[in-house]
Amino acid sequence: MYSSSTTMLNPESLQNNIRVKPDLDSLGALGDLGWYCIGAILWAKNYRLPTSVTALPNTTKNSSGVILSCTASLHYDDKPQKTFAIIHCSFLSHTSMDLSVSGSSGSLHVKDLLIPFQEDSAFFEFTLGAKFVEMHIGWNVKPEKFVVECDGLPQESLMVREMGRIVEGINKNGCQPERKWPEISRKTQLVMDSVKKSIDLGFEPVYLTEQEA
Amino acid sequence: MYSSSTTMLNPESLQNNIRVKPDLDSLGALGDLGWYCIGAILWAKNYRLPTSVTALPNTTKNSSGVILSCTASLHYDDKPQKTFAIIHCSFLSHTSMDLSVSGSSGSLHVKDLLIPFQEDSAFFEFTLGAKFVEMHIGWNVKPEKFVVECDGLPQESLMVREMGRIVEGINKNGCQPERKWPEISRKTQLVMDSVKKSIDLGFEPVYLTEQEA
Repeated sequence: MYSSSTTMLNPESLQNNIRVKPDLDSLGALGDLGWYCIGAILWAKNYRLPTSVTALPNTTKNSSGVILSCTASLHYDDKPQKTFAIIHCSFLSHTSMDLSVSGSSGSLHVKDLLIPFQEDSAFFEFTLGAKFVEMHIGWNVKPEKFVVECDGLPQESLMVREMGRIVEGINKNGCQPERKWPEISRKTQLVMDSVKKSIDLGFEPVYLTEQEA
Repeated sequence: MYSSSTTMLNPESLQNNIRVKPDLDSLGALGDLGWYCIGAILWAKNYRLPTSVTALPNTTKNSSGVILSCTASLHYDDKPQKTFAIIHCSFLSHTSMDLSVSGSSGSLHVKDLLIPFQEDSAFFEFTLGAKFVEMHIGWNVKPEKFVVECDGLPQESLMVREMGRIVEGINKNGCQPERKWPEISRKTQLVMDSVKKSIDLGFEPVYLTEQEA
């Protein structure tokens, strides 16, 4: 799996934007963009934590030591086959937000993961059971485009509506607080902290256990 | 940059296919598929060698020690900004052959790098100067699709025609042997050998110099 989120800050912003201030968003590109890359991988793994996280030695920081660009690998020691993911986030290259997943029998591509190209719909491409045709002159299938319509409500509105639904459930129907969203946030934070820790340790692997979540 | 090439071999092939035999193609997935991933990155860097190559510790081998799956990072210590690429090749996941490049002002996506979906044309998607529109409700531009027609001749035929052109130049017109293709092959081989060396060294970085080419 590969998940990236990049956007170019201008030279002035690379020193002064709140996203790169050690006393404001001290996690820099990792906190601002890497969060979503990690979230995408956790989503694809049904929110299981990776076995280990290792940052790669290409981290770039600004003069205050805040991360402007970094890459990390997430390892899942699954049986029979391990899963492996790369996340990449950067304030130093052109806007992109990719998710590519290659599974055992299909692959998935998204190119506008965080902010869709247009707010009323989003799409992904899915390829199932691809093989080369005889003499390798092409593929038996091509990526199929799946469009998800938003019924006029963009993701931010859906988030507020979900929040309202949960609050209403607690206030009016005696429901327990929803466990899904805090769990997702907590796990995303744990992986993000592990990337930061790996960078601080000189790109050593950091091991996680489900107990930590 | 991210370049991957994967295809699923069945369990019997993972032990017996000529691509995974230590006395035949002993480089396994790296030799069979990684070659093209490396070639794509070299192409994007105008065939300059990376400064260093580091394999990631997710290499999977068969019982004969031949690589079935591996990932490596290629680092270019460019000024003012470094370039960084991931290559991934595997016999253990669904057919995919992706190239994603995020540059300083544009990004590029290809999903059928080695063998195009159909042999008479190929396409790539290119996004130039993407920004989010006001209130972040979408993008100002979307990926634009560029189709390259082959005029009825697929890449294999074009390769043979190029070979014929070079031979004819030498035989009939007194030309020197073409330097372009051997240089590309040599550099691809050097990077591939460096990935293998990094794996053998326990995933340590391997440094390259242009002199080696």
